[in-house]
Amino acid sequence: MPTLTMPAITLDDCLLRDAQDPLRGLREQFSLPAGVIYLDGNSLGPLPKATAARVGAVVAQEWGQGLIRSWNDAGWFDMPQRLGDRIAALVGADPGELVATDSTSINLHKVLGAALDIAAQDAPGRQRVLSERSNFPTDLYIAQALCRQRGFTLQLVEDDALPGSLSNDVAVLMLTHVNYRTGAMHDMAALSRLAHAAGALTVWDLAHSAGAVPVALKADGADFAVGCGYKYLNGGPGAPAFVWVAPQHANRVEQPLAGWWGHAAPFAFTPDYLPAGGVTRYLCGTQPILSMAALECGLDTFDAAQALGGMDALRTKSLALSDLFIALVEQRCAGHGLGLATPRAHARRGSQVGLTRAGEGAASGAFAIVQALIARGVIGDFRAGDGDRHADILRFGLTPLTLGFADIWNAVEQLRQVLNSGEWRRPEFGQTSPVT
Amino acid sequence: MPTLTMPAITLDDCLLRDAQDPLRGLREQFSLPAGVIYLDGNSLGPLPKATAARVGAVVAQEWGQGLIRSWNDAGWFDMPQRLGDRIAALVGADPGELVATDSTSINLHKVLGAALDIAAQDAPGRQRVLSERSNFPTDLYIAQALCRQRGFTLQLVEDDALPGSLSNDVAVLMLTHVNYRTGAMHDMAALSRLAHAAGALTVWDLAHSAGAVPVALKADGADFAVGCGYKYLNGGPGAPAFVWVAPQHANRVEQPLAGWWGHAAPFAFTPDYLPAGGVTRYLCGTQPILSMAALECGLDTFDAAQALGGMDALRTKSLALSDLFIALVEQRCAGHGLGLATPRAHARRGSQVGLTRAGEGAASGAFAIVQALIARGVIGDFRAGDGDRHADILRFGLTPLTLGFADIWNAVEQLRQVLNSGEWRRPEFGQTSPVT
Repeated sequence: MPTLTMPAITLDDCLLRDAQDPLRGLREQFSLPAGVIYLDGNSLGPLPKATAARVGAVVAQEWGQGLIRSWNDAGWFDMPQRLGDRIAALVGADPGELVATDSTSINLHKVLGAALDIAAQDAPGRQRVLSERSNFPTDLYIAQALCRQRGFTLQLVEDDALPGSLSNDVAVLMLTHVNYRTGAMHDMAALSRLAHAAGALTVWDLAHSAGAVPVALKADGADFAVGCGYKYLNGGPGAPAFVWVAPQHANRVEQPLAGWWGHAAPFAFTPDYLPAGGVTRYLCGTQPILSMAALECGLDTFDAAQALGGMDALRTKSLALSDLFIALVEQRCAGHGLGLATPRAHARRGSQVGLTRAGEGAASGAFAIVQALIARGVIGDFRAGDGDRHADILRFGLTPLTLGFADIWNAVEQLRQVLNSGEWRRPEFGQTSPVT
Repeated sequence: MPTLTMPAITLDDCLLRDAQDPLRGLREQFSLPAGVIYLDGNSLGPLPKATAARVGAVVAQEWGQGLIRSWNDAGWFDMPQRLGDRIAALVGADPGELVATDSTSINLHKVLGAALDIAAQDAPGRQRVLSERSNFPTDLYIAQALCRQRGFTLQLVEDDALPGSLSNDVAVLMLTHVNYRTGAMHDMAALSRLAHAAGALTVWDLAHSAGAVPVALKADGADFAVGCGYKYLNGGPGAPAFVWVAPQHANRVEQPLAGWWGHAAPFAFTPDYLPAGGVTRYLCGTQPILSMAALECGLDTFDAAQALGGMDALRTKSLALSDLFIALVEQRCAGHGLGLATPRAHARRGSQVGLTRAGEGAASGAFAIVQALIARGVIGDFRAGDGDRHADILRFGLTPLTLGFADIWNAVEQLRQVLNSGEWRRPEFGQTSPVT
């Protein structure tokens, strides 16, 4: 990408910005390894310092001493709702509308199934679910299976073709708000308006949005949403996900995974299913309490941010970090074939930056460059392209809870050295995708 | 129930049996509160001593220091299969056939959905799923929803009517192996034979079987099974459940919750779903690793038992404990209206004892008696009846990993005192069902 005509940014500039950053103290809530600049909080958020003691207490006291009594005495039973209320505050929903539970994929099956049932009542005969070709694959897999089961067709288009594809045959528009590879962010309000004008419902995946960017589910007119607990919410590996349903839909249909935790009276043990009112019916089975407790500690890390301006303040810093990252790459890594996959417009950008690299023959080098960076302690990740419109991506998550401006300077400096030295071409950095 | 003509059992008899019990040392693997006799391991297994340190290391080292790298470096990615292989050994399955994942309810949806798809191919036109009216309710809820979605009918009968109901319209026989209230155990081999002779597939819920009684899924001809990680497997509150598929079925159909962890190449991020071979396709989304690590510690507690005769030795002791419990109740609690809901025949009994109590007007007193016992440190639980054929139950789980014979004597002595004193009639013990 071309170097823009702006003054060269120095490390001192970045240190000054850190000194002036009102959010700089928030990183003290986290335990991060020495010598690491962690730019992968969009894949697995870092460990809050409070989590170890809290999970330890759940294990030793609540489980070990309280045993079965802790379902009531320690409040285990209400955790999906209690944590859900706190996540709701981060995504523009109200208390009682959101529950923490299961995985994002499972929750997507629930809400897409419910949305198709509601569409069948309100707009019978519609046959299509519309989504984006570059949506996160598991979302597409879940939709493929459900469409096949229900006799619907899943139509995948590029993002710019979404508005034109909202015909009167579309039952549901299903999108991920922030793209997992490029960090491109959809205009939730505009697309929801277009979808509703076309008579379709909207399902939003907030995996890369919740805790990363301000989300206004209700104000923007969303119908259903799911999201992830282990990325920007810092809930720990495989933390429970969440599911939100707009109040006007919550009591209309039974979701397809109707289990006892979604029953109106789960401990009456009646043989017939009677759905609970509201989003509680979107629960199914028993939840993993140790992982749920860790998610609660992740949500705690947003409390201190709340006093400093909340998601709006985090968003301001996030954009400043990604602007800085982009400018530094352009200034200091020119001539190495890097390109920017992330939109420059703030309104279209999430909290991560995706870079491409022009291929040399078949190989972009993107995977090996990421591996070489990790060896230097700068942890980003690689996401494979499709060899067509979507290129291989070097992905850098920029969470303002833990990162400062000098971190960005140092990370790009390491990238510069990796590229200048050519060390990423060493065999140990490989050329193929890792497991994660 | 009538007092049988057998010599009165004394506490000394029980202490002697403990001293002679080759499994007596196994309880040292667990951390149990002082002053408690825990008879609710069939609802939430007790805490293994090793769990706190292991979960602590996963939090502080694997997550905190390893961060995203631990998916590979700490083996997180393979945990569903690695733990699955160990559970397989407890339920008569082979390595590679079982994965630990999601909740029992979610897994039941997967296997029942797959079974219906296979039945549609092999025996098209069959319209019924047959189950037991007293099956665990969430199993019935999951089946109700799936039957409605697929155009099937769920037929519920009493257990003695199951064989006669296996007509040629039954696609799937779905049963819980050991009844959650009474502890009555089905003959898996006989019912599987009958089902297959009628052209139906079998789905077994092993929630109260895995780690409690010997299970021989393959030898008994089962087709699908699911089970629970937080009961007899001691995996902790809401621990991941498991799913097993007979090898001849594993690659035949896609299960209905097709997510990225069940993809043949999850990190290729291709837009089209391509199911992994074998039971891995029964995974869906990302698993809660902290809870998964605790489950692994629960499975470890069976290793020491393995050297002492494994599930067969545990079974022998379990039956001795429940025989003792029944005999002591009959000898020492006569005249208080107690009845036995659990079969006396060993072949028909799981690892728990359910007692009924003749009602006084509408109230059986069962709930209050359980509460009064808990106040004395004897933790069992209450399961409501349906006011018809199935009475209220005082439920006592008898896990041979942690319980000795003197524990049983002391528990029944407390029950005797609660009944003799009438203290359970105090208002603080209530008359209504608790949350759990």
